[in-house]
Amino acid sequence: MSRFPLAPGAVIGILGGGQLGRMLALAAARLGFDVAVLDPAPDAPAKRVAAHAIDAEYDDPAALARLAAISGVVTFEFENVPATAVERLAAAGAEVAPNGRALAIAQDRLDEKTFLNEAGAPTVRFAAVDDAPGVAAALRSLGAPLLIKSRSGGYDGKGQAWIERADAAEAVFARIGARAAIAEMPAAFRRELSIIAARGRDGEVALYPLAENHHESGVLRRSTAPAEASAATLAQAERIARSLLGALGYVGVIGVELFELEDGRLLVNEFAPRVHNSGHWTLDGCEVDQFEQHIRAVAGWPLGPTHTLARVEMTNLLGDEAADWRRLAAEPDARLWLYGKAEPRPGRKMGHVNRLRPLR
Amino acid sequence: MSRFPLAPGAVIGILGGGQLGRMLALAAARLGFDVAVLDPAPDAPAKRVAAHAIDAEYDDPAALARLAAISGVVTFEFENVPATAVERLAAAGAEVAPNGRALAIAQDRLDEKTFLNEAGAPTVRFAAVDDAPGVAAALRSLGAPLLIKSRSGGYDGKGQAWIERADAAEAVFARIGARAAIAEMPAAFRRELSIIAARGRDGEVALYPLAENHHESGVLRRSTAPAEASAATLAQAERIARSLLGALGYVGVIGVELFELEDGRLLVNEFAPRVHNSGHWTLDGCEVDQFEQHIRAVAGWPLGPTHTLARVEMTNLLGDEAADWRRLAAEPDARLWLYGKAEPRPGRKMGHVNRLRPLR
Repeated sequence: MSRFPLAPGAVIGILGGGQLGRMLALAAARLGFDVAVLDPAPDAPAKRVAAHAIDAEYDDPAALARLAAISGVVTFEFENVPATAVERLAAAGAEVAPNGRALAIAQDRLDEKTFLNEAGAPTVRFAAVDDAPGVAAALRSLGAPLLIKSRSGGYDGKGQAWIERADAAEAVFARIGARAAIAEMPAAFRRELSIIAARGRDGEVALYPLAENHHESGVLRRSTAPAEASAATLAQAERIARSLLGALGYVGVIGVELFELEDGRLLVNEFAPRVHNSGHWTLDGCEVDQFEQHIRAVAGWPLGPTHTLARVEMTNLLGDEAADWRRLAAEPDARLWLYGKAEPRPGRKMGHVNRLRPLR
Repeated sequence: MSRFPLAPGAVIGILGGGQLGRMLALAAARLGFDVAVLDPAPDAPAKRVAAHAIDAEYDDPAALARLAAISGVVTFEFENVPATAVERLAAAGAEVAPNGRALAIAQDRLDEKTFLNEAGAPTVRFAAVDDAPGVAAALRSLGAPLLIKSRSGGYDGKGQAWIERADAAEAVFARIGARAAIAEMPAAFRRELSIIAARGRDGEVALYPLAENHHESGVLRRSTAPAEASAATLAQAERIARSLLGALGYVGVIGVELFELEDGRLLVNEFAPRVHNSGHWTLDGCEVDQFEQHIRAVAGWPLGPTHTLARVEMTNLLGDEAADWRRLAAEPDARLWLYGKAEPRPGRKMGHVNRLRPLR
């Protein structure tokens, strides 16, 4: 007999105890599930709303065995979970969702873009770069400028650098850590969009409306949804999301970042095999938000509706911006989400605010 | 310096770990608070989403001292908290909201109705009953039939009995436990309504739209909101709620149960000094639900908006009705809330479902 759909009372295991894990835990609680959070930090935000907290490194065999033993399904809140963790969980009999393949592809920017193109999802042109001469070779084949990114690791703009001239190849390769890398052509995009999508265990797909995203210093600052977009744009985004979910045999919520070019074509920037910052607007804009949707998907439940009840502008509260909670709490139609993080380090995501506006 | 407004990161203490405590804890987490739950049951639903769990009786001095020591404010999820608990918390330096007076009045049906009338909130006519001859005397002064209720204890229709004839006085008084009681005249009401209201630390009042409630066997079965009601009815309800909140010097959310008479007048049935089952519709019908509103109020935050985004029909899932979660989860526009209770005893509140409909 299949263990799915998981009955209420079952435990959802989560690797990672940050804000995404916390909001997943809150959603799981609404549906009657208990949550177990594995994270090295004893005071991780998600642990403070979870029935079970495991303080351990992500590759700790005993901790993973314990998580596998109590969890009906194990999921994760970030894509840099070590592959060994997923292997150990599977070896201990755990069901992991999304699957290890989606995780592995998302961890390697070269594999990711290769996969995307194979799945029929267009990206910028790119080339593999293994050393400084490779950087120079990429400049010759693709032209300048190029963005050089380490294949793995790095986020929010870290581990990447622009190059314009071949004589900077040594320096740029050193700057990104002298690691296996990918060279990407710039996209002359009009704006950045994203689509949050989900796929259930039965292959059912649910698609949220597009969000329009604004980054500052490589970090998401603001998303507005539903984004104004033509029917053709929407159709492209939905086709892309469906292709990826199908090609990955995916279960759960995925975040797909898109570039909208001047001519209206969409390119995929990257995908995140998890709930996504640009989907936080769904918390107050939809009946079923991305967190409940993810829990529904991994638990084998039917997916929920994704239509919008309101237009939402989501703004991240970075660093000491969350200290402004008094003013934000008093703002009508601003829904405040704070993550329970003690230290407001510069640029750290401390919370977000969803400002609600009537639909059209 | 006042400890209010409580900054995110502070601990909200909650006496009682049932579903109301659980939904309060989820709301507190959204605003960045930690929660401490005191309840005798180690597996109480609210404890499984709380940072701190204290397994103790409600009058345990050491446990109350510990709760007081870590909490910026202490609140409760039910009105039968022993008065000694509030006294001990206060003695240990805790701020308790709502205040002990509201709690004491709500614990005694005779004091409650006396208070309501003094505050200008009309009720049915009633009389104090201390023994079987007192029951007979009440029949002579108020007429028959009368509803005899123990002054304290009992809920969901327990500890009460109807009487029509004086010769049944001994039997009826015995049936309610031979305890100090109140005799109430029946209300010839058209329907039962309730208003959920909140008062902040600065005296600000927020009022949700009326709900119309349907009981079965003394237990709430269904609430629909906003209830269709005339402007005059709404004005009466709002005047009543404001009077009670002001007269009690109240801080927090209150639930006021009302009878609507055939002639349109409203009588107060009773009030609950806490979040209320008939306010669960706000979870999916309002930007700020009654649970976040209560946390805002007791933490000294500004109150949030109370207008409705949708029309909601809330249905309690009692006993084994929650076993129907598969079907409910698949129902579009039905938002499911399950409380994480293991044993579906008959009549036990296991969850509820909010069915959303467009406004008008």
